[in-house]
Amino acid sequence: MFLIIKARFTVTVTLILTAFLSVFAITEFISSPHSQSSKTSSKNPKNVILIIGDGMGMPMINSYRTLKSEKLNTPVQTAWDPYLTGMQMTHPNDPRDNITDSSAAATAMATGTKTYNDAIAVDNKHQQLKSVTEAAKENKMSVGFVVTSDLTDATPAAFGVHNVSRKNYTEIADQFYDERINGSHKVDVLLGGGAKYFIRKDRNLAEEFQKDGYHYVNTKQDLKKNQHDKLLGLFGEVELDKAIDRENSTPSLKDMTEAALTQLQKNENGFFMLLEGSNIDNAAHENDVVGALSEMEDFEKGVQAALDFAKKDKETLVIITADHSTGGFSYGAEGMTRETGYKWDPSLIIAAKKTPGYMAEKIAEGQDAEKVLSTYINMKLTENEINQVKNAASQSNTAAVQKSIQLIFDKRSFSGWTTLAHTGEDVPVYAYGPGKGKWKGLIDNTQQAKNIFAILEQK
Amino acid sequence: MFLIIKARFTVTVTLILTAFLSVFAITEFISSPHSQSSKTSSKNPKNVILIIGDGMGMPMINSYRTLKSEKLNTPVQTAWDPYLTGMQMTHPNDPRDNITDSSAAATAMATGTKTYNDAIAVDNKHQQLKSVTEAAKENKMSVGFVVTSDLTDATPAAFGVHNVSRKNYTEIADQFYDERINGSHKVDVLLGGGAKYFIRKDRNLAEEFQKDGYHYVNTKQDLKKNQHDKLLGLFGEVELDKAIDRENSTPSLKDMTEAALTQLQKNENGFFMLLEGSNIDNAAHENDVVGALSEMEDFEKGVQAALDFAKKDKETLVIITADHSTGGFSYGAEGMTRETGYKWDPSLIIAAKKTPGYMAEKIAEGQDAEKVLSTYINMKLTENEINQVKNAASQSNTAAVQKSIQLIFDKRSFSGWTTLAHTGEDVPVYAYGPGKGKWKGLIDNTQQAKNIFAILEQK
Repeated sequence: MFLIIKARFTVTVTLILTAFLSVFAITEFISSPHSQSSKTSSKNPKNVILIIGDGMGMPMINSYRTLKSEKLNTPVQTAWDPYLTGMQMTHPNDPRDNITDSSAAATAMATGTKTYNDAIAVDNKHQQLKSVTEAAKENKMSVGFVVTSDLTDATPAAFGVHNVSRKNYTEIADQFYDERINGSHKVDVLLGGGAKYFIRKDRNLAEEFQKDGYHYVNTKQDLKKNQHDKLLGLFGEVELDKAIDRENSTPSLKDMTEAALTQLQKNENGFFMLLEGSNIDNAAHENDVVGALSEMEDFEKGVQAALDFAKKDKETLVIITADHSTGGFSYGAEGMTRETGYKWDPSLIIAAKKTPGYMAEKIAEGQDAEKVLSTYINMKLTENEINQVKNAASQSNTAAVQKSIQLIFDKRSFSGWTTLAHTGEDVPVYAYGPGKGKWKGLIDNTQQAKNIFAILEQK
Repeated sequence: MFLIIKARFTVTVTLILTAFLSVFAITEFISSPHSQSSKTSSKNPKNVILIIGDGMGMPMINSYRTLKSEKLNTPVQTAWDPYLTGMQMTHPNDPRDNITDSSAAATAMATGTKTYNDAIAVDNKHQQLKSVTEAAKENKMSVGFVVTSDLTDATPAAFGVHNVSRKNYTEIADQFYDERINGSHKVDVLLGGGAKYFIRKDRNLAEEFQKDGYHYVNTKQDLKKNQHDKLLGLFGEVELDKAIDRENSTPSLKDMTEAALTQLQKNENGFFMLLEGSNIDNAAHENDVVGALSEMEDFEKGVQAALDFAKKDKETLVIITADHSTGGFSYGAEGMTRETGYKWDPSLIIAAKKTPGYMAEKIAEGQDAEKVLSTYINMKLTENEINQVKNAASQSNTAAVQKSIQLIFDKRSFSGWTTLAHTGEDVPVYAYGPGKGKWKGLIDNTQQAKNIFAILEQK
């Protein structure tokens, strides 16, 4: 912008009013080679949607891309692949850890400051850090959070409130109601899980929000009927069920995204929206490839809804990234040799109708293991595979049964895991829409907030 | 370019010669916002250096970054981090496999065509595919290959010759001499390992190359004295020793890079250079984090030498990437809990003076296990750790001894592995110098060759 103004000044000096308007036209035209992308990418957006795949490392994206291609029987990309702009570093500023948890990562992306693992928008001295949510609200923009975890979980918590520990779920729920910007609640549309923390014997925040004009829903059906621009939706006691296990009354990420966008776009000052595929991480913590990929599918549809909105709207910046990788998941694993082939094979995963955890629970409830496997996996298992599950079942240990079923999926698909915790490699960053030029190359996760603050300051 | 010409045309029409020259000046000025980077990035380079970290997935880069930071006691990036432009997909076109080996990956990057695993610059019908090396030679450019594997290994082979199988090492060595472009050898500077394949009873290719005017060297000292622009250097029977295990007579990747650049830059038509940190992959195939990271350090110094040349030269494009990831290596692994901490810890790796494989060999030669460990690891091990190695040693199985030592490094550092083979996630792409604008976002590995062909065609 500065240089264009300077160029215009040069025009006046050089041509002394001759053909002044024409040159403006040329200026406009000449700048087009670098062109729409460059111009659009530096324009300040009206709305910002930050999308986080919790625990979505690169190998998980590759597995999902292959699974999707296999389902569609043609090589395809994910909804976000075309918009790759770089990667981000995720390490926390923690006296002990150099691999982040979700709260330090979310704090970095929400406030621009690195902090310790467990911190919810506070620094190492427990000082509260201003978040992009708060800056958006100060700008009189609308704010929406759409997540598949409980709304009190680390990511939405760090974007919404301030706490010394992510584990203070009840406090965090209270803070969503109690913390204000200029007397107003910070988040206009809150959709996710966490009924357990919001609706308690000692305090019912759903009622309190309703008294302040919020509409409250707890089913997909009611969500779809919503007409209110202040909205609280709680669709799980804690997190939502994993996509593949969901009941019909539980909305998808796409359902929630569309419902939120319908309301948020009403504000002529624009909106900031946080969208999280939270349970990719939860499934990966369990080393459950079926659950993780069903969440990836749910996540992609939510991302697509956001991108569709942005493409139509043309004033919305969409950033898609991950907070960290989880499980040390690998696309290709033990058992592959040059003789058997180098491949990751989604066939059995596609044949699953429920997660191994769901199946293990059915077995724990007393159902026959073999029957459960044949009911929920649409592909014939070997006798060996069935026997492994039967053996685990005979020990009445639900976790062991789940693990035994997961191992079948891991071995058949060549999926590997190295930990029940996180890993710390850089994760990809994707950007679409006006303002995306700020996202480029290798960035630190704090740059997410810094870029968004800069956008909000220019508004 | 097209649009600038069109703009100039508009100028003539609109202003009808008024202030014609001035407007040209403005045109020049206005295009500068998108600026040096944009202008430089679209300029056609004189020289192209393609650098491949074989098996260098993202977690390996992160581990190296942390190890380097720990050694320097301050957070630093790698030499290539500032130049991240995107990532590349690496899958082969193989009837059975969807995870690439090094030959299909190298063929894609050298020729622009995806093929089966094992293919050396031939397609699925065994038809020879034209490589960027051949195109460079047709352009009368110089060509140099600098690798730490044998020169007959998959990556240099696919850039140099054509064969239905990477396993035909002897044939591949012969082809390096026999295959020609307009009567000339394709590669002017060949530095790496593979003496076993080049110097045989039935044929001595070192001698044949010398008859054709090549200088032949096999020590670092002789390499450094070289004055010839045609050069063959063989520094290992097969691959070079891993960096941390090398004798003083074995050159580093940096030594070879600098020696090659000194010769290649003499050609006024420019040069194409392939630079590979080949043994990152070999170490990762063994799941040896010490060897892999010592190779990463060697690789970085080679990359730095290439970047230093390019920064001074200003006409050289440098691309840095990986062909695939190896070992399912993870930065963070089993054993980490929220209680013990989320971290990857390089301390014991930094304390290693040799690879576990080297130590295991010393033990196999009869040296005392405990003595070997204390000689080659500059940090106190626990009794348990020492006993694990002693137990393995008592079974006289060198591989088991190596594994037992590696496990100590893995556990102490929280390094994980899921396979002895490759994994298929996208790998990062970095670009520096004129022409880099062609590398951007998520690309297919075939795009490497397509971009280089396009650059060569414009020369």
